[in-house]
Amino acid sequence: MPLISLTTDFGDLYPAAMKAVILGISPEAQIIDITHSIRQAGIREGAFALYSLVRYFPQGTVHIVVVDPGVGTSRRALAIKAGRTGKEQFFVGPDNGLLIPAARHLGEIEVYEITNPELMLKSGISATFHGRDIFAPVGAHLSKGTPLEAVGSKVSDFVSLDFENFEVDGPFLLGEIIFADSFGNVITNIPEDIVLKFSTFGSQVEVNGRKVSFVQTYGSVGQGESLALIGSHGFLEIAVNKGNAARQFGLKSGDQVVIKII
Amino acid sequence: MPLISLTTDFGDLYPAAMKAVILGISPEAQIIDITHSIRQAGIREGAFALYSLVRYFPQGTVHIVVVDPGVGTSRRALAIKAGRTGKEQFFVGPDNGLLIPAARHLGEIEVYEITNPELMLKSGISATFHGRDIFAPVGAHLSKGTPLEAVGSKVSDFVSLDFENFEVDGPFLLGEIIFADSFGNVITNIPEDIVLKFSTFGSQVEVNGRKVSFVQTYGSVGQGESLALIGSHGFLEIAVNKGNAARQFGLKSGDQVVIKII
Amino acid sequence: MPLISLTTDFGDLYPAAMKAVILGISPEAQIIDITHSIRQAGIREGAFALYSLVRYFPQGTVHIVVVDPGVGTSRRALAIKAGRTGKEQFFVGPDNGLLIPAARHLGEIEVYEITNPELMLKSGISATFHGRDIFAPVGAHLSKGTPLEAVGSKVSDFVSLDFENFEVDGPFLLGEIIFADSFGNVITNIPEDIVLKFSTFGSQVEVNGRKVSFVQTYGSVGQGESLALIGSHGFLEIAVNKGNAARQFGLKSGDQVVIKII
Repeated sequence: MPLISLTTDFGDLYPAAMKAVILGISPEAQIIDITHSIRQAGIREGAFALYSLVRYFPQGTVHIVVVDPGVGTSRRALAIKAGRTGKEQFFVGPDNGLLIPAARHLGEIEVYEITNPELMLKSGISATFHGRDIFAPVGAHLSKGTPLEAVGSKVSDFVSLDFENFEVDGPFLLGEIIFADSFGNVITNIPEDIVLKFSTFGSQVEVNGRKVSFVQTYGSVGQGESLALIGSHGFLEIAVNKGNAARQFGLKSGDQVVIKII
Repeated sequence: MPLISLTTDFGDLYPAAMKAVILGISPEAQIIDITHSIRQAGIREGAFALYSLVRYFPQGTVHIVVVDPGVGTSRRALAIKAGRTGKEQFFVGPDNGLLIPAARHLGEIEVYEITNPELMLKSGISATFHGRDIFAPVGAHLSKGTPLEAVGSKVSDFVSLDFENFEVDGPFLLGEIIFADSFGNVITNIPEDIVLKFSTFGSQVEVNGRKVSFVQTYGSVGQGESLALIGSHGFLEIAVNKGNAARQFGLKSGDQVVIKII
Repeated sequence: MPLISLTTDFGDLYPAAMKAVILGISPEAQIIDITHSIRQAGIREGAFALYSLVRYFPQGTVHIVVVDPGVGTSRRALAIKAGRTGKEQFFVGPDNGLLIPAARHLGEIEVYEITNPELMLKSGISATFHGRDIFAPVGAHLSKGTPLEAVGSKVSDFVSLDFENFEVDGPFLLGEIIFADSFGNVITNIPEDIVLKFSTFGSQVEVNGRKVSFVQTYGSVGQGESLALIGSHGFLEIAVNKGNAARQFGLKSGDQVVIKII
């Protein structure tokens, strides 16, 4: 069965228009909502949400991803195949970097610009809702086996994006908050292997000058106590056991964070 | 595969009861949530949400729609077939106008009162949750091909509702806010063709006395600037680029709005 | 078709990881979200949400339920078969009482501890996300017909939980708020049969000293007026017609409530 995921900043109502279009073209598709609550125009957050989950999806999944502040302007629309044959997944969305970290996580990528009107909504393309009019129908066609080459021409000058802007400076790990989840856990871009090179579970670290325990799970500290751990996505995460770290530390997506190993 | 959409003011939890009942009767049904966040008892908002999406659904879709302040009173339950044979869709919900704009949008409609207990929940009908006990099972049966006539008798004195209460008065377009989406974009009941008869993209209009640009897409104005455009649903919409027009203009569903063409 | 329900306190994003894992194992599964908005660590609330809906699900449904403050500690993971053959449903989740009321509602239960790594996520088990790494894959395997015995060994010393801590004392019914829904309706643990033994529709009762009408449906009182009724789940519920009883009565899950029959 074709499997399609959706990741957008559309909130309520608009995702249903995408699903109606998808099921009109690919009636047997299974559709999974990854999230529709990405902060408006939050390209890095949307890229991270998809990146953190992509490894769990089966071969052949088509990810339709729309965080698209440039909709209606000249930004291109992309379709990507990622991963080696037999393990490949597909990505459809705007050319603003959004798709790249998840696609690259699977291995080699082939990137195409979507230009073929045959694969778009037949009743016309609006200036404001390419999620419904272009990305949903193209994704639905790919889910049914339409070859990637049918969408348009191969491109290599697409917009890139990564989460690798962290630095190690003596005892300091300098990173960025890339996602705050619905519990208020804040996720940094500092990967597991870097953290474990410098610290061990059971020790302490400073987060922006505030001492917290570095532990393996939320319940390792008392209720209301703050902690650092390696989250389920493989990055250093700041949390409060049954509390809200985003609020307690005053941290949000895009903020810088300094971790001191002590 | 049978396709069923759900539109309610039920918030969380209760929609799952409807889905359990549906899949008990029609196990292969695809279920799409349009929204469960209609303002409590917001019949006009619910009617608009469905109306704005109905054209994107494939033939045969069954829309179960429950914004039902009269549940448990003597208001009737309806099932409707709309559109010509080969293009028809079905609607199930209370007789309070909710289903009518979407159904009429597809063409001719046939309206039946639901009275056949054979198609309702076998374990009994509660006084407060006809979404689960009547509308879900009837919709599930229709999705499997049960003929519309099986639900009960044809009626013609159903409650009607439309969004046509706008007026043109010299340079003024007088309308109503029919929906505020989760971004704070406010959607009026003034349709595209009326607006484009009086104004052109790139000009300015006044919204309740406040001058805004009339443009084709959100990104056509600076961040934080307000604008008017034809939304993806085909109506005049007031928005703020990366902002919240409902808050900035103090507008909510049901409010009057005066657009001055300048 | 296999049917799987999900009930968690995971909010946004994380449920999609569970769905990706499920569909990788059981690609034809239908997945229903019961709710992902259980209050963090709200075991009684989660247990009630599932309990209130379980009777509406068809035979063979697998319920994956994760409200799991003890994740990463030594608490056990359970899989349960409930109900007589031909009517059975399955439950997967932590050993903290969460699964028990819903399972017992269906009849006899058989409880197994999950220990078989063959049925868990192949890429490794995190310390913080057993919903994705253990419960989702085990539930997916059960939905495809893997026998319950394959998960591990039978246990009888599981953690229990019920909602029967209500008392009748003269004209007083003493109970607990077990759930506040998204409308602000507050649901007590006092069951329909107890209430109807002492009161009749149309009479009045006192809720924590405040007089309200005991009626059959929300619309039986004026807008903004408070009421008591038997909710669609079969328990005494306190509500305000088109209003929010949780706020007006200052009641939340876990609070005690005294109903006086007058």
